[in-house]
Amino acid sequence: MAEEAAVRAQAEAVRRLKQDKADPDEIAKEVTKLLEMKARLGGDEGKQKFVLKTPKGTRDYSPKQMAIRERVFNAIITCFKRHGAEVVDTPVFELKETLTGKYGEDSKLIYDLKDQGGELLSLRYDLTVPFARYLAMNKITNIKRYHIAKVYRRDNPAMTRGRYREFYQCDFDIAGQFDPMIPDAECLKIVHEILSDLQLGDFLIKVNDRRILDGMFAVCGVPDSKFRTICSTVDKLDKMPWEEVRSEMVGEKGLSPEAADRIGEYVQLHGGLDLIERLLQDPKLSQNKLAKEGLGDMKLLFEYLTLFGITGKVSFDLSLARGLDYYTGVIYEAVLLQEETVRVGSVAGGGRYDGLVGMFDPKGRKVPCVGVSIGIERIFSILEQRVEASEEKIRTTETQVLVASAQKKLLEERLKLISELWDAGIKAEVLYKKNPKLLNQLQYCEDTGIPLVAIVGEQELKDGVVKLRVVATREEVNVRRESLVEEIRMRTSRP
Amino acid sequence: MAEEAAVRAQAEAVRRLKQDKADPDEIAKEVTKLLEMKARLGGDEGKQKFVLKTPKGTRDYSPKQMAIRERVFNAIITCFKRHGAEVVDTPVFELKETLTGKYGEDSKLIYDLKDQGGELLSLRYDLTVPFARYLAMNKITNIKRYHIAKVYRRDNPAMTRGRYREFYQCDFDIAGQFDPMIPDAECLKIVHEILSDLQLGDFLIKVNDRRILDGMFAVCGVPDSKFRTICSTVDKLDKMPWEEVRSEMVGEKGLSPEAADRIGEYVQLHGGLDLIERLLQDPKLSQNKLAKEGLGDMKLLFEYLTLFGITGKVSFDLSLARGLDYYTGVIYEAVLLQEETVRVGSVAGGGRYDGLVGMFDPKGRKVPCVGVSIGIERIFSILEQRVEASEEKIRTTETQVLVASAQKKLLEERLKLISELWDAGIKAEVLYKKNPKLLNQLQYCEDTGIPLVAIVGEQELKDGVVKLRVVATREEVNVRRESLVEEIRMRTSRP
Repeated sequence: MAEEAAVRAQAEAVRRLKQDKADPDEIAKEVTKLLEMKARLGGDEGKQKFVLKTPKGTRDYSPKQMAIRERVFNAIITCFKRHGAEVVDTPVFELKETLTGKYGEDSKLIYDLKDQGGELLSLRYDLTVPFARYLAMNKITNIKRYHIAKVYRRDNPAMTRGRYREFYQCDFDIAGQFDPMIPDAECLKIVHEILSDLQLGDFLIKVNDRRILDGMFAVCGVPDSKFRTICSTVDKLDKMPWEEVRSEMVGEKGLSPEAADRIGEYVQLHGGLDLIERLLQDPKLSQNKLAKEGLGDMKLLFEYLTLFGITGKVSFDLSLARGLDYYTGVIYEAVLLQEETVRVGSVAGGGRYDGLVGMFDPKGRKVPCVGVSIGIERIFSILEQRVEASEEKIRTTETQVLVASAQKKLLEERLKLISELWDAGIKAEVLYKKNPKLLNQLQYCEDTGIPLVAIVGEQELKDGVVKLRVVATREEVNVRRESLVEEIRMRTSRP
Repeated sequence: MAEEAAVRAQAEAVRRLKQDKADPDEIAKEVTKLLEMKARLGGDEGKQKFVLKTPKGTRDYSPKQMAIRERVFNAIITCFKRHGAEVVDTPVFELKETLTGKYGEDSKLIYDLKDQGGELLSLRYDLTVPFARYLAMNKITNIKRYHIAKVYRRDNPAMTRGRYREFYQCDFDIAGQFDPMIPDAECLKIVHEILSDLQLGDFLIKVNDRRILDGMFAVCGVPDSKFRTICSTVDKLDKMPWEEVRSEMVGEKGLSPEAADRIGEYVQLHGGLDLIERLLQDPKLSQNKLAKEGLGDMKLLFEYLTLFGITGKVSFDLSLARGLDYYTGVIYEAVLLQEETVRVGSVAGGGRYDGLVGMFDPKGRKVPCVGVSIGIERIFSILEQRVEASEEKIRTTETQVLVASAQKKLLEERLKLISELWDAGIKAEVLYKKNPKLLNQLQYCEDTGIPLVAIVGEQELKDGVVKLRVVATREEVNVRRESLVEEIRMRTSRP
C-alpha cells in the first residue's frame, strides 16, 4: 500500500534526523508528521481480526429497544411503588460460598469469576439469595422492597423466546413475621396489576403450596427421600403429558406405579374455593397435617383474593410445583393464555421461602419471606414483536424543539438560543453543522419525531422574535423571544 | 487422617492471622479455604460459618442510600434527555479480546470470568469501549446516546472517598462527523448543568487537548516514543508537586532535564481565551502543526462556551493530561473546589476519541466521538455524608396513605378499601396484621413519612364515609367513600 510505504519512509527520515542530532524543532516537526500519517492509517493493522459480537446469550439494547424496555420498567416500578416498596441494590457478584447450596442442580449454571488473587466470586444467579444474604448481614427482620437488576445463568439461550444468559429480574418481596397470607395475597395482586397494565392479553395465575404437594406425596405413598425429585418431575407437567411424567416417575425415579397413579389423580385437579373445600374433606389429604395446613392457608388466600377481586384469573392448580429448592409454602406462576404471540412460558413466578434467610444467619434465625419475580425479558420479547408487527413509530428521545436557522452564518445565534432553552429546562437539539440546510433540519425532525422547530433568521433577530414551526402541520408562528419557553411548554405538554 | 490434619493446620493458620490482625481480605481468603476443606471432609459444622459480607470493594445500597442515588440519577438523566440523547445498554461482560489493548497499563485491573467452557469473557472496565464496539458492530456512524451502568475495576478501593471496585458510570457521547467543537462544547455544557443542578458547591472544569500536549512534548524535545509515558507523569500534577513530577520524568522515565524544565514552564499555565491567544503567538508552539490545530480548536471551543455563558467555570489548563490511551483531541475533567466535603478528586471527565471505533471496524473506518462520564459514586459519597450531617429525613417510599382501622375484625374492610385505592392508582399500604392497634398504625406513618391515614370503622362503614387523618396536623375529616381517591390525590399532590 502506498500509504504504508509513505509511513515507513517518514519513520526512516525521523530516525536519520535523530541519528544526526538535528535541530530538535526540526525533529519534532517530522515526528508530528509521522504521528499524523500513522493516525490516518488507523493504527496497527494486526489488531483488527476481532470477532465483533456480544457474548453468547447476551445482547445490546438499541435505543428503540430501550424505549420499549423503559415502558415496561415504568409500569412495573409504578406498581411496586404503589404498594409501598422501598428499593435496594446489591453487587452483581457475590462471594462464591454465598451462592453455594442454594439452587440444587441448577448450581452448575452459575458463572464464576477467574481466581485473580483475593476472594472467589460468582455472578448472582437470582436476586432472592442476595436479598436473603442482605437481610441476614444487616439483621433486618422486616422490609418490603423491590430490586430490578440483571442476573446471570449459563443456560442454553433461546433468544427469540426471551431466554438469555444475562437477563433482568424485577423482584418484589415482603420479609417479616405477619399474619398468614396477607403479604402472599398482595404479591398475587401485584402480578395481576402488572400483567393487566401491560396489556399482554389474557393470563392465568396458577397457585399451589409446597405443603399441599408434600402432603399429597405423603398420602400417595412417596418415600420422604423422593419428595424433592418427584416434585421436579411434577414441575414438567406444563411441558409434557401426564403419561410421560408418570413414566419418568416410575422408570427413572423408581416410584411405585400405584403411588404414581394416585399422584396422577391429584395433579389433574384445578379450580377455586370449591376445590379447596373438597380437598379439605378428602379422607386421605385431610388427615395429613402439612396438607391440611396448606389447604387452610389456601382457603384464606382465596378469601383475600376475592376481596381484591382477582379470583377470576387465579387457579388453584395441584400440578404447579416450581423448580427452586427454597420454597416452603405458597407458590405461584403466571402464564399468558393467548397464542397470537410467541410462546414464552411463564412471565411471573414466586412463592414463600421462610428458611432462606436462616441459612445465612449464624444462629439460624429465620425471617419469613414471600415474593414475586417478573420475567421482564419474556414480556419484552412479546412487546418488541408486537411493535415490529404494528409498525408503530417509537420515539427514542423526548426532544421538544430543534433550534434551526434558514440562513447561513447563524451558528452563534442558534447556540445562544439553545443555551437559553436548556437553561429553562426545555429539551432541545441543534444540528452540529455551521451552516445546515433548512430542509435537512426539518427532515431531522421528521425522522426523530421532534414536534417543533424554533427558527432564527436575520429578520427574526431584528424583530426580537423566533419563528416557531409545528412539524406535523407546517404551521408557522412568530413568538416573542421572551415568550418562547412558555409557548414551547404549552405546545408540548401532554394532555 | 491426613485430611483432618490439614484442616487442623489450616485452622491454626487462620487463628494466627487473626491474632496478628492481618489484612482482612487475607484472613477471609484463608477462612474460605478452611471452610472448603471442612466441606470436603463432609462435616456439617462448616455450613453456617459464612463470612457474611459483600465482595471486597463493593457494597449494598440500603433504601435510604437508594433514595439519594435516585435523586442523583434523575438529575443526570434529565440533563441527558434535555440534550436529546437516546439510551442504549450493553452486556456487563464482553469477549475478553474486545477489551484487550484499549486501556494500556490499566488492563491488569480488568476482571476476567473463569473459563467454564465457551468464550473467554471479562467484565466491562468502562462504558466507552463497549460503546465503540457497539457502533462498529452495528455500523452506526451517527448517534447521541447516554448509558448508565456499572463498571468493574480490580483497583485498590477507598470506599469513604467513593472509590469502589463496582461503580456506576453515567456516560453521554456524541458520535459522528461534524463541524469542529460544537459537540465538544455541548459536552462541557452538560457537565456544567449537572454539577450546578446537584448543588455540589463551587467547581472548575479543566480543559486541554491531546494535540496541544503532544505538540508541547515535541517542542520541548521529548522523543515521540516517550509521549505517552510522559503524558502519564504530567497527569499526576493534580496529586503531586511539580518537583516530584519532574524527578519522575528525569529519573524513572529518562527524560533530559532540559526537556523536563521546558515542560515545566508550559504545564503551570492556565487561563482562558487570553492564554490561548498568547500560545498561538508562542514562537515554538505556533510552529508545531498539532499544537496549532489544537490551539485553534481550543479557541473555537472557548468561543462556543462564551455563547453558552459558562467560561467562568472553565479553565484551559496545560497540566491536564487524563490517563486513558484512547483520547485524541480535547480532554476535560471537573473538580470540586470546596474543602468542606471529603476530597474525592474529579467528579466528571471525558474527551474526544476519534480512533477507538476504527480499532473495531474490519476496515478501520473511523467514527469521531466525544463524550463525558459523570463520576456518580464520588458525587454520591458527598451527598450521603451531607445528608448524614444534616440529619435530613429522607423518605424511602412514596406511599400516600395507610389504610387503617380503629376497631378489631376489620381486616376484610381494610383489604377491600386498599384494593379500591390501588386500582385507582393511589400509593397505599396496610399493616399485615389481622387486628393492629391504631397507635401502631399511626406510629408506622410517623416512622415512614406516610402523610395520610384512611381509617375505617363500624360507624364510617354505616355512613358510607372514610375518616381521613392528616398525620402531621392530626386533623381528621370524614370523606365520602366515592370522593376519597380525589381527596387523597388533592392532599398529596406536590405544589
